[in-house]
Amino acid sequence: MITTLKPETTEEQRIQLIQWFEAQGVQVHEFIGAYQTVLGLIGDTSGIDVEMLELLDIVEKVTLISDPFKSANRKFHPEDSVIDVLGAKCGGGHFAVIAGPCSVETPEQIREVAEGVKAAGATMLRGGAFKPRTSPYDFQGMKAEGIELLLEAKKATGLPIVTEIMNANHLPLFEDVDVIQVGARNMQNFEMLKELGRTKKTILLKRGLANTLKELLMSAEYIMAGGNENIILCERGIRTFETYTRNTLDLSAVPVLHSLTHLPVVIDPSHATGHANLVKPMALAATACGADGLMIEVHNNPAKALCDGPQSLTPAQFKDVMDQVRKIREVI
Amino acid sequence: MITTLKPETTEEQRIQLIQWFEAQGVQVHEFIGAYQTVLGLIGDTSGIDVEMLELLDIVEKVTLISDPFKSANRKFHPEDSVIDVLGAKCGGGHFAVIAGPCSVETPEQIREVAEGVKAAGATMLRGGAFKPRTSPYDFQGMKAEGIELLLEAKKATGLPIVTEIMNANHLPLFEDVDVIQVGARNMQNFEMLKELGRTKKTILLKRGLANTLKELLMSAEYIMAGGNENIILCERGIRTFETYTRNTLDLSAVPVLHSLTHLPVVIDPSHATGHANLVKPMALAATACGADGLMIEVHNNPAKALCDGPQSLTPAQFKDVMDQVRKIREVI
Amino acid sequence: MITTLKPETTEEQRIQLIQWFEAQGVQVHEFIGAYQTVLGLIGDTSGIDVEMLELLDIVEKVTLISDPFKSANRKFHPEDSVIDVLGAKCGGGHFAVIAGPCSVETPEQIREVAEGVKAAGATMLRGGAFKPRTSPYDFQGMKAEGIELLLEAKKATGLPIVTEIMNANHLPLFEDVDVIQVGARNMQNFEMLKELGRTKKTILLKRGLANTLKELLMSAEYIMAGGNENIILCERGIRTFETYTRNTLDLSAVPVLHSLTHLPVVIDPSHATGHANLVKPMALAATACGADGLMIEVHNNPAKALCDGPQSLTPAQFKDVMDQVRKIREVI
Amino acid sequence: MITTLKPETTEEQRIQLIQWFEAQGVQVHEFIGAYQTVLGLIGDTSGIDVEMLELLDIVEKVTLISDPFKSANRKFHPEDSVIDVLGAKCGGGHFAVIAGPCSVETPEQIREVAEGVKAAGATMLRGGAFKPRTSPYDFQGMKAEGIELLLEAKKATGLPIVTEIMNANHLPLFEDVDVIQVGARNMQNFEMLKELGRTKKTILLKRGLANTLKELLMSAEYIMAGGNENIILCERGIRTFETYTRNTLDLSAVPVLHSLTHLPVVIDPSHATGHANLVKPMALAATACGADGLMIEVHNNPAKALCDGPQSLTPAQFKDVMDQVRKIREVI
Repeated sequence: MITTLKPETTEEQRIQLIQWFEAQGVQVHEFIGAYQTVLGLIGDTSGIDVEMLELLDIVEKVTLISDPFKSANRKFHPEDSVIDVLGAKCGGGHFAVIAGPCSVETPEQIREVAEGVKAAGATMLRGGAFKPRTSPYDFQGMKAEGIELLLEAKKATGLPIVTEIMNANHLPLFEDVDVIQVGARNMQNFEMLKELGRTKKTILLKRGLANTLKELLMSAEYIMAGGNENIILCERGIRTFETYTRNTLDLSAVPVLHSLTHLPVVIDPSHATGHANLVKPMALAATACGADGLMIEVHNNPAKALCDGPQSLTPAQFKDVMDQVRKIREVI
Repeated sequence: MITTLKPETTEEQRIQLIQWFEAQGVQVHEFIGAYQTVLGLIGDTSGIDVEMLELLDIVEKVTLISDPFKSANRKFHPEDSVIDVLGAKCGGGHFAVIAGPCSVETPEQIREVAEGVKAAGATMLRGGAFKPRTSPYDFQGMKAEGIELLLEAKKATGLPIVTEIMNANHLPLFEDVDVIQVGARNMQNFEMLKELGRTKKTILLKRGLANTLKELLMSAEYIMAGGNENIILCERGIRTFETYTRNTLDLSAVPVLHSLTHLPVVIDPSHATGHANLVKPMALAATACGADGLMIEVHNNPAKALCDGPQSLTPAQFKDVMDQVRKIREVI
Repeated sequence: MITTLKPETTEEQRIQLIQWFEAQGVQVHEFIGAYQTVLGLIGDTSGIDVEMLELLDIVEKVTLISDPFKSANRKFHPEDSVIDVLGAKCGGGHFAVIAGPCSVETPEQIREVAEGVKAAGATMLRGGAFKPRTSPYDFQGMKAEGIELLLEAKKATGLPIVTEIMNANHLPLFEDVDVIQVGARNMQNFEMLKELGRTKKTILLKRGLANTLKELLMSAEYIMAGGNENIILCERGIRTFETYTRNTLDLSAVPVLHSLTHLPVVIDPSHATGHANLVKPMALAATACGADGLMIEVHNNPAKALCDGPQSLTPAQFKDVMDQVRKIREVI
Repeated sequence: MITTLKPETTEEQRIQLIQWFEAQGVQVHEFIGAYQTVLGLIGDTSGIDVEMLELLDIVEKVTLISDPFKSANRKFHPEDSVIDVLGAKCGGGHFAVIAGPCSVETPEQIREVAEGVKAAGATMLRGGAFKPRTSPYDFQGMKAEGIELLLEAKKATGLPIVTEIMNANHLPLFEDVDVIQVGARNMQNFEMLKELGRTKKTILLKRGLANTLKELLMSAEYIMAGGNENIILCERGIRTFETYTRNTLDLSAVPVLHSLTHLPVVIDPSHATGHANLVKPMALAATACGADGLMIEVHNNPAKALCDGPQSLTPAQFKDVMDQVRKIREVI
């Protein structure tokens, strides 16, 4: 850790700070430039609260040398983690294909989609039961009943199921859910992350709309600090000035996260782009740059049900995407 | 509501969509341009789920004419709301000054700060008991004990207290708290917002780092839809590419929110900028553009305790800010 | 074009505006909602200045139905444009590989790189002669001499050359340059774009750091309006809050631009990411989502010259990327 | 300057780099952490090209201790610069009020506005003659004729004039212009900045839409490096995800720039917000946080000319703003 002091720092203040560092058990190397002094800290700096240090009047900047995430850090765990969900694997060369509708609506709908995506090569079934909606007046999902329908579809197809949690108090309802999704808006709902860290469930952790990749890893760290290391990271678009796409899909997240962490990374092109016709090109791009899986919205009959989510593909379109994904995976 | 159809929409699809709109009880005005058709919807469009409509294959864009927030909307409630917290008022010409330390640390600290800020003109005392920290390894606050210390300081000074909640399950601990703060990271923790809507507590709702002003109002709407209309909105900086300040304080939020909603708006210059020397100029600017209050970090003895948050002002510096704020309020 | 009026608009103001529209030769369809009136304009709206219209006191919002770009618009030119640079084609199924060093430095350097990238499959040679640098104190490029060295390398290898222009007054120096690059910082240097529109040179137009895709197309329109339709668009990363990568590569630009325009789109993964180890994965992703080409920095001997740009690949690394790019192109 | 090496750096590479630094005449302090090595450079590091250094394979990060701007740096020039434009001063306690229409249109228009703003307290007259427009099909300004009309208005009122340049070749037309404005889109048009550095004209340099404050200072440095130190900086809104305002006005730029540089800083609330009703609150806020001046659009008769820019105030509204600005300046 490097601490750059402000030019106006007095000698007394500097000495006081150095003594405080040494009292925390770290060694301090001072070096004094023409205008500013820089303190290099060596040893175990984990006890030093960086955010607080940054706020000190005499401190201009704190530069971390070692990353603040530990359990998620590839440096201490060089091999890829492989997450195994009832035999559907993700990471370390295993590719997960998580597909299904935005919302669970009827037993027939979820059953048909489940069969369609399984036939096309999906390895897990997704479906929303609890829905995070910007407006309190919009449909909030089928809730417990939606989870029941997912479990029936799981029984019928054998596909493990993935669904979003919005409240740690709902955890009992998720007992038979295979993968619990934490949505972008809850990426820094630290209290919920702690609760999930106490379970053994696989967690699909989505990156927040305005969160850096390091913050995503710190949120994974919240879960891992509780003892649960079954985490799949998911990039689903960040918020930028561009308005044509719903969000901006940051595909460089795949190789960057692979360099920083051993956890697997999947891409959700459906939510990132918000346009059905962009799902296929971005799914192929994600595959080509090494993603460990895809999360894609698929709906059985967009024509019939007017208000079904048509950022979704039909099962036939999804199959076409999967065929191309497979070809790309063969050549990379 | 205006729905722009994609150029490739067939006549059959268009008729089908119009019939569906009419079945929802809205009137449809069609007008057909050289390349595209636009449908104008008149009547009560509140039953139409915009997010789903936008996702339809044939829909290019949905343009809202009336705003999706109702309870918070100034159109339906033209007079300013005045929030009264044990006599400390905010809104409608009343200026709230919420001051105190980032974290509650000791009985002496919070007591001294409370007395200091009261003397300088603060109308409420803030202090963090539950702290949202990016890292699970950082200090998470004194929790219940912190609230106890705040209540003692309240008893000593008469100042109503403001403190952040991070989990709706903690609500019983907040029974004697006067204003419950929802932090930026939880602005779209919809499940918690619903719970807060069921209380009668005043809620200080902070804008999320990447949330638009309309989304802030939709989150207020979640609380109001539950019956709780005691809401103070708070702008505390948004995330941009600029790295010199911690966040970018968006002061235009003050007049924009005043035009959209009757709810009061306070500004937190401490968190927005992350630098103690920027707090005063931004507090004065906020006052000048019509904010209904300020939320400022103040600490009793930054010199003594090395790791106290020095984005905080000392009580003396805070008093200087308040003196100038008062002068500006007199002339505007 | 749709114009939404503010609720407070008087009848007189509305009638005045409608008459003004009609005087511009467009038909106006009025429809009046509960709170607001919306005017739909039909006919040739190209004479109406949207930016000015938006600024009218009574206007809340102007929604464009047809896009403001004409020459670049795929609607009026459905087939892909194929740009032919001395036989090296880009667009319509033809893939351009533009490779070379960040800066031209010595005759040997540019010659060796040119031969290396040609052997690996590059179809054009890039190299900076005029360099846009944030600091006036940094190396600004070899200028005219750099162009000379590029022309020598072209003579030796037959590769057409691509290099950046920073001042339209330098155009005489670019007489033998095959593709003139407009850098991100000059994307809205409209005066220079107009000058380039008067030439017949192929222009490689890079997206600005904070420019939308529609603005990129409007800048292409500036060039095309002058009569020069030889344009290759280039996505090279946008500025976001993420700091790990230098910029955020927006790969969805590829399918989005393909739907909006007939012009070819190439991707520059080197500048976008700023890290050599991210170039390969992002080059493969760009290929998989349908880019019409790549622009990649390659340097001959990163080990020798300490300060050569090592976001560059070596020719050997570049060859490895090209081999994989080719495989992906075979399967998509 | 601090250089953090990547963990995988070999000893040989490290020694080679240190020797290279020493050959540049700087002293190197090495300190070796558990995972990484950090090199602290002491002495004159101005000869080291930071961008190139950052790109080295073995370099993880370069942290600057001293700022890369010199002439603009307050450290070397502690007193405020006062820019004097025919007696209208800006900086060091002097407040500039630059007002006038978006575009110069007719002799009567510019003359009337000039008289109106002068009466209300403006110290300079602004008006666009060359207009940067996103679309090549939109009105591009009256050009040379517009400058003539500004000069006539100057003669009539005595107000110095401010107008934008878009091409250094137009400089002869600006011979009698008092302040030359560089617009946001040209902030990094380095070639034009260099030309302006060779003049003695006062330059009003606007911050680019996606440029950091340090980049703004580096662009000022381009002008100052040429010998022209007459620069006024202008914040006019940055591009963010928020869509309600045209841009997000970053008022913290005022105190931040004041701490970094001796150059004066003015605020343009008209362009930043794009809404006439937001101009007054943001002008007052700018004044309260210490801006050295304001740049405000004012138009004589918004009612008559339908398409005049009504982000503009009328002279009467402008007078009201000025009265309040004056009161705030009296109390701060």
